[in-house]
Amino acid sequence: MVAALDIQVTKVERSKLSEINLDNLPFGKYFTDHMLEAEYENGKWTNVEIKPYQPLLLDPSLAAIHYGQSIFEGIKAYKDAAGNAFIFRPYDNLKRFNLSALRMNMPEVPEEIFIEGMRRLIEVDKEWIPGKKEHSLYIRPFMFATDCMLGVRPSTTYKFLIILSPTGPYFPRPMKIRVEEKYTRAVKGGVGFAKNAGNYGGSLLAATEAQAEGYDQVLWTDAVEHKWLQEVGMMNVFFVLKDKVVTPSLEDGTILNGVTRNSVITVLKDMGADVEERPVHVNEIVAAHKTGELKEVFGTGTAATIAYVETLAYGKYEMNFSEKDWELSTEVKRRLTAIRDKELPDTNNWLFNI
Amino acid sequence: MVAALDIQVTKVERSKLSEINLDNLPFGKYFTDHMLEAEYENGKWTNVEIKPYQPLLLDPSLAAIHYGQSIFEGIKAYKDAAGNAFIFRPYDNLKRFNLSALRMNMPEVPEEIFIEGMRRLIEVDKEWIPGKKEHSLYIRPFMFATDCMLGVRPSTTYKFLIILSPTGPYFPRPMKIRVEEKYTRAVKGGVGFAKNAGNYGGSLLAATEAQAEGYDQVLWTDAVEHKWLQEVGMMNVFFVLKDKVVTPSLEDGTILNGVTRNSVITVLKDMGADVEERPVHVNEIVAAHKTGELKEVFGTGTAATIAYVETLAYGKYEMNFSEKDWELSTEVKRRLTAIRDKELPDTNNWLFNI
Repeated sequence: MVAALDIQVTKVERSKLSEINLDNLPFGKYFTDHMLEAEYENGKWTNVEIKPYQPLLLDPSLAAIHYGQSIFEGIKAYKDAAGNAFIFRPYDNLKRFNLSALRMNMPEVPEEIFIEGMRRLIEVDKEWIPGKKEHSLYIRPFMFATDCMLGVRPSTTYKFLIILSPTGPYFPRPMKIRVEEKYTRAVKGGVGFAKNAGNYGGSLLAATEAQAEGYDQVLWTDAVEHKWLQEVGMMNVFFVLKDKVVTPSLEDGTILNGVTRNSVITVLKDMGADVEERPVHVNEIVAAHKTGELKEVFGTGTAATIAYVETLAYGKYEMNFSEKDWELSTEVKRRLTAIRDKELPDTNNWLFNI
Repeated sequence: MVAALDIQVTKVERSKLSEINLDNLPFGKYFTDHMLEAEYENGKWTNVEIKPYQPLLLDPSLAAIHYGQSIFEGIKAYKDAAGNAFIFRPYDNLKRFNLSALRMNMPEVPEEIFIEGMRRLIEVDKEWIPGKKEHSLYIRPFMFATDCMLGVRPSTTYKFLIILSPTGPYFPRPMKIRVEEKYTRAVKGGVGFAKNAGNYGGSLLAATEAQAEGYDQVLWTDAVEHKWLQEVGMMNVFFVLKDKVVTPSLEDGTILNGVTRNSVITVLKDMGADVEERPVHVNEIVAAHKTGELKEVFGTGTAATIAYVETLAYGKYEMNFSEKDWELSTEVKRRLTAIRDKELPDTNNWLFNI
């Protein structure tokens, strides 16, 4: 347990919960009544507050807007059948958040603010956690630079916030993706492993161009040959071959160390699958498709958990899949959902009770 | 000339100019009385306003903070001996701004807002342009995404602003730099040529580590071998060899297409120098230093115009220079200053009168 934290709590006079239809929730559009805000100055975190969700008054010279020191995480909280609320693997997100902070030359956020602050905030807004299956409360912790000065140097002041957004079931249609051969998202020595804002802004154009060609997203590749596979849009990627499952490895720091990626690997190993984390070349995947050994392709991420891939295109070569192919991915999704629904035991301590 | 623009102007009741000491101005710390603000929505720019410099009320879910669609430019305005104000090459910055916008999947800003808005804003705050030599008014146009929604997709709304900061003479001490062999700033297919916020945030850690080793900045290199030279911190880099000047070329899109870089190349060619824009390998520079053919190294950028390099280190090999070596760079700086001071003719139409 973390130490008790001195958080000032100011509650709204009237909740806006009754204005929201919890049966029809788009992703990340509605926010709960409250937010957590903390400030970093003179080398330490201070003014930790839970207060009504409200706009921020920010100077036009705000360092985050000009020089991009801005990072975030995405986490989900659920309510079980008995009404008990819990968060899925928040400590893994805390660890990754602070790795992002280090890479972006920003201060770490301590556990008592990130985890305990999140717990207290959700406690205040617990009525906002949808109780229905496949619904959840999306948690967005983020930190950004707040110095008001145009010199290029690490900011000396920061804000850390947590905002909460109730979200409905995410049933994306199976994705059509293509291997990206022109744009690059990340390279060794860069910031690809960090969840910093710039990674997302830099990736949008490739997705827009792919969408104009009829795809949903791109499968990013290495910067040199555009043949070593990295990740899909906002998700990690898995390839189910005849006798094993392969997924790109993390050692080059070019892909996100997904919490769902890790959960999926764990579940696959529990199921007895042979999972290989290693560099994956597009030619290996194309060859496996030609021999019939490529069974399934799927993406993993916080929003969808598992996203099926219907089409994977490499140039003019299209690999197509359909519902009957998605066996292993469906079973993994079933098990992850069952753990969250407390129908399977939480053997890895992934559920953090609020 | 651009079309007359409908700009609503609201002036401050009392200028804060008298509170500022124009003889002692740090870079980018003080801002003038007014700012320009425009909004993009429903596919077009609207609400172009000049108004008192003031904080912005921004939602915590602001797209720019979470997903990094945020770009900027840096330009300078001067006042000549007769009191006439002018901007240095603003059209080149407009062109680059819109290339950054394209890469970051953002709308272009039209000339009548970027140039004419800038002209009108500076007209309103013209008393803020320092008249002394080597002083200037730093102009910061920037644009960021303003959708309030956590889905990862190009924002549909944006703000474009121009803020102004009077700045004193920038006499940096000669720089000690080292060749970066661990971190990567940019790679082909990425966003290195764009002036987006994330490029700066991602570069800070390398500079911080170099500073801990006694250097001021790093000289970025290619992502694969860390041997092909790119740019120095916030500047382009030039190497003066015995019979020519070389500077890294732009074709990979990994370095900024600096306006000062271009001005320097133009002035060097006017002086009869043989300038080569091409890939530059660190071994070529080290070999030229060993034979005595490497005469000078210097950086170019809006803030300093020309920054002398005192030390360039490649691993344990240090190349040192001193005042007596900085012949060509000093002459280039003298000519650029003389063009701005209207002591040399503005043959390239670089000065834009306000």
